[in-house]
Amino acid sequence: MSAWTHLVRFVAFEDDQVHLGQLVDPTRDVGLDSANGVPIYAFKIEGTMYNGKVTKTTLQVRKLLSPIVPAECPYIRCIGLNYKLHAQEANMTIPTVPALFSKPRTAITDPYPTPINIPRIAQDGSSDYEAELVIVIGKSARDITAEQAHSYILGYTAANDVSARNEQIKTPMPCFSKGMDSSCPLGPVLVSTAVITSPEDLKINTIYNGKTVQDGHTSDMIFGVSELVAYLSQGTTLEPGSIILTGTPPGIGYFRSPRIFLGDGDDIRVYIEKIGTLVNKVHYE
Amino acid sequence: MSAWTHLVRFVAFEDDQVHLGQLVDPTRDVGLDSANGVPIYAFKIEGTMYNGKVTKTTLQVRKLLSPIVPAECPYIRCIGLNYKLHAQEANMTIPTVPALFSKPRTAITDPYPTPINIPRIAQDGSSDYEAELVIVIGKSARDITAEQAHSYILGYTAANDVSARNEQIKTPMPCFSKGMDSSCPLGPVLVSTAVITSPEDLKINTIYNGKTVQDGHTSDMIFGVSELVAYLSQGTTLEPGSIILTGTPPGIGYFRSPRIFLGDGDDIRVYIEKIGTLVNKVHYE
Repeated sequence: MSAWTHLVRFVAFEDDQVHLGQLVDPTRDVGLDSANGVPIYAFKIEGTMYNGKVTKTTLQVRKLLSPIVPAECPYIRCIGLNYKLHAQEANMTIPTVPALFSKPRTAITDPYPTPINIPRIAQDGSSDYEAELVIVIGKSARDITAEQAHSYILGYTAANDVSARNEQIKTPMPCFSKGMDSSCPLGPVLVSTAVITSPEDLKINTIYNGKTVQDGHTSDMIFGVSELVAYLSQGTTLEPGSIILTGTPPGIGYFRSPRIFLGDGDDIRVYIEKIGTLVNKVHYE
Repeated sequence: MSAWTHLVRFVAFEDDQVHLGQLVDPTRDVGLDSANGVPIYAFKIEGTMYNGKVTKTTLQVRKLLSPIVPAECPYIRCIGLNYKLHAQEANMTIPTVPALFSKPRTAITDPYPTPINIPRIAQDGSSDYEAELVIVIGKSARDITAEQAHSYILGYTAANDVSARNEQIKTPMPCFSKGMDSSCPLGPVLVSTAVITSPEDLKINTIYNGKTVQDGHTSDMIFGVSELVAYLSQGTTLEPGSIILTGTPPGIGYFRSPRIFLGDGDDIRVYIEKIGTLVNKVHYE
């Protein structure tokens, strides 16, 4: 048995149970495959995501889930304005320290076919997407340096930081406008640090109804992955299973001309190089 | 067996185990009693804080704990600038919507004799106190009205929203500066809604080394308790056991002349009418 590199959490056809698995073919973009009805296979992982081992048992994926179980996620940290070009489109000055906010664990939602449910309060033409690279913490980190950060990270996945812009502009604190139920679609693949050794060298996109609307690169981050983990760990314990959304590149709907927003039935996809595509449909509750 | 009104979580002398209890004499301020070495007795509660029943078994308290188990707290919400007189001393305009931020569960700490540990980054003469009334959610709340809010609340307790001011002023988002380990002392008594029927009619104070430095009243809140719960539940599930810190009255150390701050060995107490006193000593790590 070996360690996993491309972990998925899923419901299997074979037994209708939830499993952790290692993708049989890690070159496939299983988020896209799932949306296109292409069969996905995974080697069953025994154990937890922290110390799971890949077995020879193959299972077929019925439904992809978020790689993080919401009830087992101690905390979701999010960094605002962390791409230079996004700070520029927002007409904001570059932050001197990371701008930290948070989402509750109830925000975590699964990839397609699970939809992003837009609650009534956000059905006002201002619901928006944000593609984000996600750091998953693998062991308890406190007062660590940027040089040490790599060994505290379990891996990386993708998120869509769904935002209710009309609520967001009412206050400088975005925890409410970005914390609603299903405002944090996550996954589907958790890629280990053995595969992603340079997290600041990844393409990152959003595709809205087939059109690329965010076309960024993680090298544009103001605070890089190791720097963020080190900063956040000062005086603060980062618990295993907690996640950090690292900010979004330019091209959000609110700043486009004409503006675009997440409408009922829309198709919204976050793509990150080496991780793949997080697909969701939008559903108005 | 009857329902509890004044719940404490504690380690008992009798068995050195953690229990939930109902204060035998709810007229006592057990936070003060504990700091003064006065014996405290509680009737053992069978069950959880949600459906616990008071038994006739009496236990003696060895050590008071936070009424909320950190690992069982799904989320900590905090409201910034929610007292008119505090917004005034901060020279900030009155918010039009609640300014929501969050602390991680690792911030929760116990009352005296457990200290507030000030990490190195905050040992810079800017570590500060904030007395806050805390709402404890009793059942899952989503899209509820202010009129319905009361029945979703389990009770009220006290917190000290410990803040690293020099970090806070670097960014409009206070989740880092207010989210450090032991930045959320909580308790000791969780008082049920059967006792506190008017949460906007309570005196609230901070006592710093014996001197009253915050002398406020919850009637000065901009957004009241029911209004906050209803607002926060829009599109968002408030989970049982999650807590809401409702903001602080004027008199924080940073705005005093001369400024005061939490120094090593200081004694800091949050008093709320009908709840009692949350006592902590300050310890520089």
